[in-house]
Amino acid sequence: MKIEKIGEFGLIKRLSRFIKNDASVIRGPGDDCAVVAYDKTRYMLLTCDMLVEGVDFTARQNPELIGRKALAVSLSDIAACSGVPRYALVSLGLPAAVSVEKIEKIWRGMNRLARAFGLNIVGGDMSKAAALTIDVSMLGLVEKKRLVTRGRARAGDIIFVSGPLGGSIRGKHLRFIPRLKEARFLTAHFTVHAMIDISDGLAQDLWHILEASRVGAVLYEKMIPQSRQCLCLKDALSGGEDFELLFTVPPKDALKLLSKGQGKYYPIGFITGKDLGFRLAGANGRETDIKPEGYRHF
Amino acid sequence: MKIEKIGEFGLIKRLSRFIKNDASVIRGPGDDCAVVAYDKTRYMLLTCDMLVEGVDFTARQNPELIGRKALAVSLSDIAACSGVPRYALVSLGLPAAVSVEKIEKIWRGMNRLARAFGLNIVGGDMSKAAALTIDVSMLGLVEKKRLVTRGRARAGDIIFVSGPLGGSIRGKHLRFIPRLKEARFLTAHFTVHAMIDISDGLAQDLWHILEASRVGAVLYEKMIPQSRQCLCLKDALSGGEDFELLFTVPPKDALKLLSKGQGKYYPIGFITGKDLGFRLAGANGRETDIKPEGYRHF
Repeated sequence: MKIEKIGEFGLIKRLSRFIKNDASVIRGPGDDCAVVAYDKTRYMLLTCDMLVEGVDFTARQNPELIGRKALAVSLSDIAACSGVPRYALVSLGLPAAVSVEKIEKIWRGMNRLARAFGLNIVGGDMSKAAALTIDVSMLGLVEKKRLVTRGRARAGDIIFVSGPLGGSIRGKHLRFIPRLKEARFLTAHFTVHAMIDISDGLAQDLWHILEASRVGAVLYEKMIPQSRQCLCLKDALSGGEDFELLFTVPPKDALKLLSKGQGKYYPIGFITGKDLGFRLAGANGRETDIKPEGYRHF
Repeated sequence: MKIEKIGEFGLIKRLSRFIKNDASVIRGPGDDCAVVAYDKTRYMLLTCDMLVEGVDFTARQNPELIGRKALAVSLSDIAACSGVPRYALVSLGLPAAVSVEKIEKIWRGMNRLARAFGLNIVGGDMSKAAALTIDVSMLGLVEKKRLVTRGRARAGDIIFVSGPLGGSIRGKHLRFIPRLKEARFLTAHFTVHAMIDISDGLAQDLWHILEASRVGAVLYEKMIPQSRQCLCLKDALSGGEDFELLFTVPPKDALKLLSKGQGKYYPIGFITGKDLGFRLAGANGRETDIKPEGYRHF
């Protein structure tokens, strides 16, 4: 059977059946980060992201920005769980023809971003490969009280995003700032029920929250902030690679956030009961179903 | 400049210059694992290994054994530092044509080995890729007193290996048992000054110990145990992928180890001053220089 028949998420579900972990694993595969025991007050967050030339970046793009992105996507996963990044390992798959200078530029891009966020790059591995491949694994820490996952959204919650969406492929995906500070600000001052970073697209990533939390949602077309590079509503809904935070807070906290958030956080809809499905309210007031479409590898 | 001009180790040296880590990083890149602060009595060990089809395994090999190997090489790195493996992340680069059944077999091979060593596979990532690529990152723990690195071999130490060498490519590289129990046995009962796992070959990996410890060594040709699959002395010295432990202990502990080690540990030479170089004593008593040759990616 080919992967495309069941898709990436179908495959992940099938593989998850094999896993048997011990009690120190608070959350295994299925969220932005795995969560494991650390000390009395904190959990450890673990995540990894593989980028491949021709899939996630092209040979012509600025190598420093490629390196930057390889690290930034994992930082964004740590942010989605409200964590603080601490350590990273970097595996490089290198075609024999790639120049030392290019590798150094990729590496410089990574290390600059690492320093900006207090992250330590502590090791790595190299292998020959047909296409340039960068796999970053990252370890973060989060106070138990401040861990946010996808699974606790409640009917009545207001849904927010941390910035305009759409058109990321036209540049932002190489330069986005992982929303680590914003996530820490949110969990320091507000109750955040569920959070995810938008990598595959608003529709698909919100769907992950709805599935994990067993709830429904309605989004308001007019309230979804579109970036300058955004082509249309569909691009904002499913273009992907925005790497903004998508999160839900109870109504009381939503009001507080609107007044204290310095205009950085956009309310776009609210969480409903599961039976109401996943809907978009158009400018004309009519509601249509949203299909959880977005970027798919297979 | 092409990578082959400076080699993998030359490239690693160049990249290391960019890294600036904080005080929690006890050892950054350059050993089998990175070592970072954990709690009062223990360190955390971090390592990753990337395997690529056509480089580290072939498309025809048993997928369960491929998965097994992908995990085993990182377990071997944890063993080399005398650690206990705890968590792993797995990134898969998948060609669209690879079947779900093959991926499941790879995954089953990983999970079986993980369970045998109390390792939790807690998450991962998937990407499209031209060649099947498996990157495993692993976290282990080690008591501060029992951490062993490459850098503390002393003149007079006896050099040991944990099993016969050579010919691994003819089968053992897919089925080897990571020497976790052996490493824990060694550091529970003996003083181990330096340790590494043999991945690139005895000559090259011992050279890493000599460089890190600033010492020399002499090996006795007749004492180097050759596996049944081993073709010749050169194969034992530089075939690579043996994944046995290579370690040095002071003479007093060497005698203890020989009597309590149940014949599992083979003394093969001793550590000398740096000025004496890296030599092999032949059966005829003549000494020749050993070149630190072994497997090289570039």
